[in-house]
Amino acid sequence: MSFITLLTDFGIKDGNVGVMKGVIWNIAPHTQIADLSHTIEPQNVAEAALILNRSAPFFPAGTIHMVVVDPGVGTQRRPIAARLGAHFFVAPDNGVCTMVLERAQQEGGPVEIVHLNRPKYWLPQVSHVFHGRDIFAPVAAHLANGVPLVELGAHINDPVHLTLPRPHATSTGWEGEVIHIDHFGNIATNIRQENMGNPHDVVVRMGGAEIHGIVRTFGERPPGELVALYGSTGNLIVSVVNGSAAQRLGARVGDPIQVETSKQAK
Amino acid sequence: MSFITLLTDFGIKDGNVGVMKGVIWNIAPHTQIADLSHTIEPQNVAEAALILNRSAPFFPAGTIHMVVVDPGVGTQRRPIAARLGAHFFVAPDNGVCTMVLERAQQEGGPVEIVHLNRPKYWLPQVSHVFHGRDIFAPVAAHLANGVPLVELGAHINDPVHLTLPRPHATSTGWEGEVIHIDHFGNIATNIRQENMGNPHDVVVRMGGAEIHGIVRTFGERPPGELVALYGSTGNLIVSVVNGSAAQRLGARVGDPIQVETSKQAK
Amino acid sequence: MSFITLLTDFGIKDGNVGVMKGVIWNIAPHTQIADLSHTIEPQNVAEAALILNRSAPFFPAGTIHMVVVDPGVGTQRRPIAARLGAHFFVAPDNGVCTMVLERAQQEGGPVEIVHLNRPKYWLPQVSHVFHGRDIFAPVAAHLANGVPLVELGAHINDPVHLTLPRPHATSTGWEGEVIHIDHFGNIATNIRQENMGNPHDVVVRMGGAEIHGIVRTFGERPPGELVALYGSTGNLIVSVVNGSAAQRLGARVGDPIQVETSKQAK
Repeated sequence: MSFITLLTDFGIKDGNVGVMKGVIWNIAPHTQIADLSHTIEPQNVAEAALILNRSAPFFPAGTIHMVVVDPGVGTQRRPIAARLGAHFFVAPDNGVCTMVLERAQQEGGPVEIVHLNRPKYWLPQVSHVFHGRDIFAPVAAHLANGVPLVELGAHINDPVHLTLPRPHATSTGWEGEVIHIDHFGNIATNIRQENMGNPHDVVVRMGGAEIHGIVRTFGERPPGELVALYGSTGNLIVSVVNGSAAQRLGARVGDPIQVETSKQAK
Repeated sequence: MSFITLLTDFGIKDGNVGVMKGVIWNIAPHTQIADLSHTIEPQNVAEAALILNRSAPFFPAGTIHMVVVDPGVGTQRRPIAARLGAHFFVAPDNGVCTMVLERAQQEGGPVEIVHLNRPKYWLPQVSHVFHGRDIFAPVAAHLANGVPLVELGAHINDPVHLTLPRPHATSTGWEGEVIHIDHFGNIATNIRQENMGNPHDVVVRMGGAEIHGIVRTFGERPPGELVALYGSTGNLIVSVVNGSAAQRLGARVGDPIQVETSKQAK
Repeated sequence: MSFITLLTDFGIKDGNVGVMKGVIWNIAPHTQIADLSHTIEPQNVAEAALILNRSAPFFPAGTIHMVVVDPGVGTQRRPIAARLGAHFFVAPDNGVCTMVLERAQQEGGPVEIVHLNRPKYWLPQVSHVFHGRDIFAPVAAHLANGVPLVELGAHINDPVHLTLPRPHATSTGWEGEVIHIDHFGNIATNIRQENMGNPHDVVVRMGGAEIHGIVRTFGERPPGELVALYGSTGNLIVSVVNGSAAQRLGARVGDPIQVETSKQAK
């Protein structure tokens, strides 16, 4: 059993996601396909990189993750495929794989990237505007069938690198920024749990609000209260219990957040 | 072949539904997974209970229905799994299974509920905020693999009960309320077909409008007309042909509806 | 391995799509199911016909495409199933299959249509309002199991025909109309690439804007620029690079477009 995931900015109304599944099943009929998201903000490569990085590790080893957030479709930007750690990735070379690549490098797993340049593994006719259907889906399906990565293209060592916002230390703690706002209006930041100290001593400042202490989960406080907690992947989150923190604070991706940590943590 | 359905309030943009599929396939790779809905109103346990109850019976016997509408995640609320009639359910113990439980009891089917308290069937690390990924998905997958319910936790007899709005008889018929508004703007009520008499004699009153008689289906009347009919699960529905009754009447869940039935029905 | 696709106007919040998957798997458990779209504009048969026609060809031969955009549900409109070229279709007889039928006829493939009138292949109880669940899903599943089309109903030769907007030649080129606006705000028209001449000589006029020349793909021009190009199925598209042309021009389905072609093309 092979697994392919799909992550795009295509939306769900036009049938284009379904079309890619048809292409995959034509080549690899026994593949299970899961949608990660198709409502990435149009052309937002950074958002796709983030969702990909936190979702991919939960899939079986060997899963092929296909990403089509591709403002450069049809231009000179390269289509690529990669083995990064235990997983495969098929995507435009626009930095969308930067976070999963860095993780694989940190963990010492395999890192192998190819420029997809063998049209025999694509659809016979390749449009200039829909490489998800014409290049990425057939390549993902051939990977699912066991075609070796090296058959699909030439090795490269210079994938496009996406510059990701990093938190930086301040005299009293950390300054970071908002990297994602989820369906519930929870505000995810790039400040990591492992850099923080005693939860009781932390003070979070954002959008004029000040939150004292980190709770373990939403239900510890009454509905409507603004809280700070660690998300399921270890990032600092600002939430309103049973409500929308993004709406309450008018927060947007890129907004700054300041955290004053306990002395032990500095 | 095993089947798992997913019903959440996660929305579709953040990848969290996909992540749960990855966890399931890691444990039970041959499972087919269907999405019931991921756009339940955030934290609306009653809406999830309703969708679950009318959807579950159409799946094959043995299907595992996983529900993650879970405002109490990470608190003392129990995670549970249950065999109710021909199906399995995995959910937080917050009443979301009340309707399917009552149905199984009415039909005399098996009723067996366990408190999930065996971490060996969960992911190795359990976050405080995403039990869908860390507890419910792995438990559903183990059920799909044939692990007996009793292995997954200790039997309980006191699941949380959700109080559901019931229609009540009046001197001339029934008074009920709106329980769901669907994608088309059809207004579903808790008044049941089996309690009504001759369709020609029924008068429906709601939001200042009065509808005489029950039609069999939308297309019996011209576009734009307000009609009453029975939905596919036997509930009384108020609709606008090819339009939105909810918009026309400004209706919301919980709004009252009065029905004057034929004399035979009283 | 059998494949079924689903195309409806049901939306994604009410569980009705999931219910149809349950019905299918009850009858044909080894079927893979792909969603084409469930957010067709309510009752918009023409939009569904378009999405179906451009999506279906990319699926494996023998795939069963089920369409439930069905304003006439429960009335005298016939439920039908068809073999059209390499694929099967199950749908209400309201014209939604007109485009795929015409394509099969043009390509000289098999054309066989039956009126679904054998209740033994339906659910035991058929509601008046949800034939997707009660008739179309079980019929699609039986087709997936290899039941011959002729077993499912009586042959017909008079399916309802949908009148589709056709472009017409003018003294200087073509006049057509907007047939679809996609998730990105790209404006698709019914003017076909094969009717056009030298891309450099083409002038496109729409909503007060004038575009000189056809580009190959979005990324050839800077973000924000209004461009004309051919979509992945050969239709003329008006786009804003990394933006929404529909929003920029206030375009809607049915709006006119004029194209002045090169002399060679006339």
